[in-house]
Amino acid sequence: MTEPSMNGTGLHDFPYDQLEAFLDGELSPTLSGSYPVWEAARYSLLAGGKRVRPRLLFAAGALLGPLPKEALPFAAALEMVHTYSLIHDDLPSMDNDDYRRGRPACHIVYGEATAILAGDLLLNRAYELMIRIGRENPLPGVLRAMQVLGEAAGGEGMILGQDRDLALEEMPGERVDISDVLWMSELKTSCLIRAALLMGGCLATAGDGVMDQLALAGTAAGIAFQIKDDILDCVSNRDTLGKTPKKDQLAGKKTFVTMVGLEGATALLGQKASEVDDALDNLKAMACNTASLESLMRALLERKN
Amino acid sequence: MTEPSMNGTGLHDFPYDQLEAFLDGELSPTLSGSYPVWEAARYSLLAGGKRVRPRLLFAAGALLGPLPKEALPFAAALEMVHTYSLIHDDLPSMDNDDYRRGRPACHIVYGEATAILAGDLLLNRAYELMIRIGRENPLPGVLRAMQVLGEAAGGEGMILGQDRDLALEEMPGERVDISDVLWMSELKTSCLIRAALLMGGCLATAGDGVMDQLALAGTAAGIAFQIKDDILDCVSNRDTLGKTPKKDQLAGKKTFVTMVGLEGATALLGQKASEVDDALDNLKAMACNTASLESLMRALLERKN
Repeated sequence: MTEPSMNGTGLHDFPYDQLEAFLDGELSPTLSGSYPVWEAARYSLLAGGKRVRPRLLFAAGALLGPLPKEALPFAAALEMVHTYSLIHDDLPSMDNDDYRRGRPACHIVYGEATAILAGDLLLNRAYELMIRIGRENPLPGVLRAMQVLGEAAGGEGMILGQDRDLALEEMPGERVDISDVLWMSELKTSCLIRAALLMGGCLATAGDGVMDQLALAGTAAGIAFQIKDDILDCVSNRDTLGKTPKKDQLAGKKTFVTMVGLEGATALLGQKASEVDDALDNLKAMACNTASLESLMRALLERKN
Repeated sequence: MTEPSMNGTGLHDFPYDQLEAFLDGELSPTLSGSYPVWEAARYSLLAGGKRVRPRLLFAAGALLGPLPKEALPFAAALEMVHTYSLIHDDLPSMDNDDYRRGRPACHIVYGEATAILAGDLLLNRAYELMIRIGRENPLPGVLRAMQVLGEAAGGEGMILGQDRDLALEEMPGERVDISDVLWMSELKTSCLIRAALLMGGCLATAGDGVMDQLALAGTAAGIAFQIKDDILDCVSNRDTLGKTPKKDQLAGKKTFVTMVGLEGATALLGQKASEVDDALDNLKAMACNTASLESLMRALLERKN
């Protein structure tokens, strides 16, 4: 069950199997019977993703000492939000992607209507879960972590990123600037990556100084991951990446590679990676234990698929 | 701005204009610029619906005395969740409805992709709003009201109702029983109607006895409203109802009218209305001020369009 591509990164403290079991439990309705919307949600959520955002939450939560017990449910909620966004983004009217995480996309297996509902279910379930935890333990850090995820996922965050992605796709290439693609990536990818780090910080009741550096690291890392994705999408093939390659270029999508070429994208990736390093250095200077976060960031920025 | 069909129902205490202004404010992003997803969400949310669920929340909140100040934002969140469900239900892959609230449906005006995102935005915004209020004032009743809405809207509530609706539609008529349609309606309609009443109760810190009667009233009223809708859908025409009539029958949908005929549906409506009356009587016997709730229920059950 252990996720292969994250092995050997010094992250043996991430409870992968525990998270999978928790997600499985949260996606088991109390009602008996079999329902397409639940099957579809389970199909997409329990497809063995890399769980990047939960790992980031845990790594940030561990900066200041022992991990707060709310880390597991909040990491699960975060992964649900991420998975819902993938299901909806893959729909025919959106990015029209047939493959996801190495398998046919949710709407290919369950149909469009059920895929839309399954996304809705996962988004709603994430909030149900966090609200349940918040009711049990209404600490300021817990309620703040809920708010961080809510705002990052919303219409001024990730959802606006998808709106911008769709808008850029329809614009002629000469009217699109690299700054448009940077902003779109910041919304579409960085918002949730930054939220992962900030949620870990909230749950560990980090102070403003630490939270500021987590925000900087998350923003830069999100863009870096997106550039890395674009580069891999350009050079990989479907078998190793698990999604349809080179589709972006064909669909007129504006990616970092289509905007500034492979070389330009690689240079920008280096720049964003060094912004992440700066933030990690600043966290270390604030007596944070950055070992987990550092090795995780390195693994994510140097991955080959 | 006052919503016409609710006039003269003794509900002059419902702050219709205040709710509209609040919804408008919540749907105004802090970012400057114009974005399709925000325009689409505003188009659907600010279309002048009857605001039935907010009215029910207010009427239930007023049973025990002065209305708690959280009633307005929670009523707004509830209406956002309702509106998101309408946008997604109307999509071509779902119920494929071209009209809603007397106007072209969201996806007709803004396209499918933006309509899906606008629904996502509204659902997420509802939680952002409630979480903000919950952080400001983490009282047990406030957090409980959040949980009530979350569970009602989720995969064991409204979303499962839409899943059941889609499943019944594909089944041959002879395999569908009236109990299937009752359960589907309970999930798809009653869950949110009941949540409206229970949220009012939570915010007014009602005791278990009152909450039980609100749950009974909400469940019966939700089914009654659905039967009423089915009857009106059968006898009305598009101009007075604001949505495409008789489409349900053509699409093989299983409604109360297609299942037990107009007469049977009318009898069932009477039965559910009397269950609502019983619950109201019980609330009155518990010294609740039921005047608003009674006149609202009457208006809803006796409406002509």
